[in-house]
Amino acid sequence: MSQLKAVILNCSLKTSDEESNTDALIEKFTSTFDKKNVESEVIRVADYSLGYGITDYTGAGDEWPTILAKVKQANIVILASPVWLGEKSSISKLVLERLNGSSDETNQKGQPIFYNKVGGAVVTGNEDGAKKSAGELIFGLAQLGFIIPPNPLAYWVGDAGPGPSYIEAEGYKSEFTRENATMASHNLVHLAEMFQAHPIPTEGNAS
Amino acid sequence: MSQLKAVILNCSLKTSDEESNTDALIEKFTSTFDKKNVESEVIRVADYSLGYGITDYTGAGDEWPTILAKVKQANIVILASPVWLGEKSSISKLVLERLNGSSDETNQKGQPIFYNKVGGAVVTGNEDGAKKSAGELIFGLAQLGFIIPPNPLAYWVGDAGPGPSYIEAEGYKSEFTRENATMASHNLVHLAEMFQAHPIPTEGNAS
Amino acid sequence: MSQLKAVILNCSLKTSDEESNTDALIEKFTSTFDKKNVESEVIRVADYSLGYGITDYTGAGDEWPTILAKVKQANIVILASPVWLGEKSSISKLVLERLNGSSDETNQKGQPIFYNKVGGAVVTGNEDGAKKSAGELIFGLAQLGFIIPPNPLAYWVGDAGPGPSYIEAEGYKSEFTRENATMASHNLVHLAEMFQAHPIPTEGNAS
Amino acid sequence: MSQLKAVILNCSLKTSDEESNTDALIEKFTSTFDKKNVESEVIRVADYSLGYGITDYTGAGDEWPTILAKVKQANIVILASPVWLGEKSSISKLVLERLNGSSDETNQKGQPIFYNKVGGAVVTGNEDGAKKSAGELIFGLAQLGFIIPPNPLAYWVGDAGPGPSYIEAEGYKSEFTRENATMASHNLVHLAEMFQAHPIPTEGNAS
Repeated sequence: MSQLKAVILNCSLKTSDEESNTDALIEKFTSTFDKKNVESEVIRVADYSLGYGITDYTGAGDEWPTILAKVKQANIVILASPVWLGEKSSISKLVLERLNGSSDETNQKGQPIFYNKVGGAVVTGNEDGAKKSAGELIFGLAQLGFIIPPNPLAYWVGDAGPGPSYIEAEGYKSEFTRENATMASHNLVHLAEMFQAHPIPTEGNAS
Repeated sequence: MSQLKAVILNCSLKTSDEESNTDALIEKFTSTFDKKNVESEVIRVADYSLGYGITDYTGAGDEWPTILAKVKQANIVILASPVWLGEKSSISKLVLERLNGSSDETNQKGQPIFYNKVGGAVVTGNEDGAKKSAGELIFGLAQLGFIIPPNPLAYWVGDAGPGPSYIEAEGYKSEFTRENATMASHNLVHLAEMFQAHPIPTEGNAS
Repeated sequence: MSQLKAVILNCSLKTSDEESNTDALIEKFTSTFDKKNVESEVIRVADYSLGYGITDYTGAGDEWPTILAKVKQANIVILASPVWLGEKSSISKLVLERLNGSSDETNQKGQPIFYNKVGGAVVTGNEDGAKKSAGELIFGLAQLGFIIPPNPLAYWVGDAGPGPSYIEAEGYKSEFTRENATMASHNLVHLAEMFQAHPIPTEGNAS
Repeated sequence: MSQLKAVILNCSLKTSDEESNTDALIEKFTSTFDKKNVESEVIRVADYSLGYGITDYTGAGDEWPTILAKVKQANIVILASPVWLGEKSSISKLVLERLNGSSDETNQKGQPIFYNKVGGAVVTGNEDGAKKSAGELIFGLAQLGFIIPPNPLAYWVGDAGPGPSYIEAEGYKSEFTRENATMASHNLVHLAEMFQAHPIPTEGNAS
């Protein structure tokens, strides 16, 4: 068995010189990955200059290829987003659009290149919108060819209305959110191990 | 001016012999309606036997015509729903389907029959999903021909995970939710008065 | 290996004495299941009298337990829905609510009872709304504990506006829809076989 | 009466040196606006350099203030988006986020600054996703304080799967899409005229 790798794309609207509530919840995942000997990297997408378009390269200055290369090498890919207006961030949609730019690419067996990778979602916000956000990220990944484990997400949001976010609100004290992060992170590893050992057969899905 | 009327369809999964958290938030609206001299009625949809289908009558035993008659007489229509699995209730979707069964009907001027009626939404749940639910109810109403006022909704949900709902959690203490209910209920009345006095002209929208 | 079983819940608003467009697309799946020696059954949910509520039994007359028993025995579960107003049917939401009524039940290992089952979606409509519908069905299944394979859905819709549905429009001639049905049905079987042979380990997900 | 103004924000992923299918459908709206003596401007959002964040200004180089100034002067605001992966574009979500950055600003009467403005949506795509996209744009506008007229959108998408978009597919021949554009554009003007003459009273909605 070769070393399993996880990449987490934090689609916060803030660059990494600012603290991200979503990062704080992501740590629950990376600590499981450490324990299970899965190498992991968190990418703050806002740090990169990304062009718009359904393509893997939009031209000079586009830094998406750096991110895409890491996604291609990963066994586990997590899309992480804050909630704004009850929806996932614009940057997380941009990431789905850019991933879609590789949807015609195939692996050596003729399957879409995201096959045998396992996908999940992490969402934080000060209030309502986590499931809508996570559901769209999860479904986007499934359409692109990722495998989705049971209970593939963890989220935290406060009650209705403006208010403190995950860190300030001490969302990490939520037993529910902690349990979800435990389930999701372990299930991502369980399935990544399984599909590394037993890749999806090509019947019906290879061109 | 004739008397303005409001009908609120509470799409709780429970019949009216059980307490509804959504009803408790609806009261914020009916108290505004009382104050503004708008006659209002709350209908617990689960009390009625409703058939399935995109039609105004599904046959013997279908009690939808009773509800539809009240909607037709109302100037203000509010769809109210609990949140389950981060989504509006099945009964609230059934109500949209049944309203859609009248979408070809026109008023005396040849406009869709829901023109000049004003629509809003009320949502409660123990956790995440209010904006997704309300957004779908609001957009459904707009597609059917209702006018949507600014800030057309009020909702309350608790923080992430299982927990108490509106009544037990004392959601009525939320300043945010109270203010939203005040804005939404007044804006519904403001626009209902305006469109009773100045109906939408027929240019471009009448058959 | 014991015989694999698939159950497809057709959430059409029509009972089985009427032709269902969704059924016609489901046949692409059952023909794969036949070929791969997976026993399958299509259930027209509207034929059953189902109560409302987040529970596995709503009381006398509730026929959900008959459906639930079949879901429990299945390795593959497909939720199939028509599109109305750009959304999945009310009956499909009712099915998610009823499945949610078993979310606290665990298998012998302490995992949620839907673990090791594989989920997918089929959607047909005369126009727009398939991906929203399928996405919500897929995400609902994932939250409940089902595994989602890559490309877990097939759908057909016509172009914008009213028009003929799948059968009349000869949607079965769509190469895109046929290929999706082939991918989805095979991937459902591939993963069902894999998780029958190698169930998900309990670390992190069992109570 | 002073001159009514409309601004249409085309949230295509392409800059204006490339043809936009969404622009082609927008023309149905601007031709109504011309006829009704409403001054209109179409802004290709991708032409502007926009920062990320829930704020009206993200710092040096951020060109959002130019767009925001036009929105503030408009009586009618239309958000227009293509469909990608069954969802609205990332740029359209960015626009909602940036508009949200002005949600605490009030007019001279103490109401949110978008009050008395009327909002609508235009969506085109090669396939499925128009109503989900439009519904989110419409609900976003309603939450921000815009008034939504009946039938507030026009869209065109082709049938399931990859295929030509609006222009190449001659979507303008769709009677359904043309009628929707006629209804939506006239209703936007009808309501803009009404709320210019009779602004929303402040009771319940002013701080």
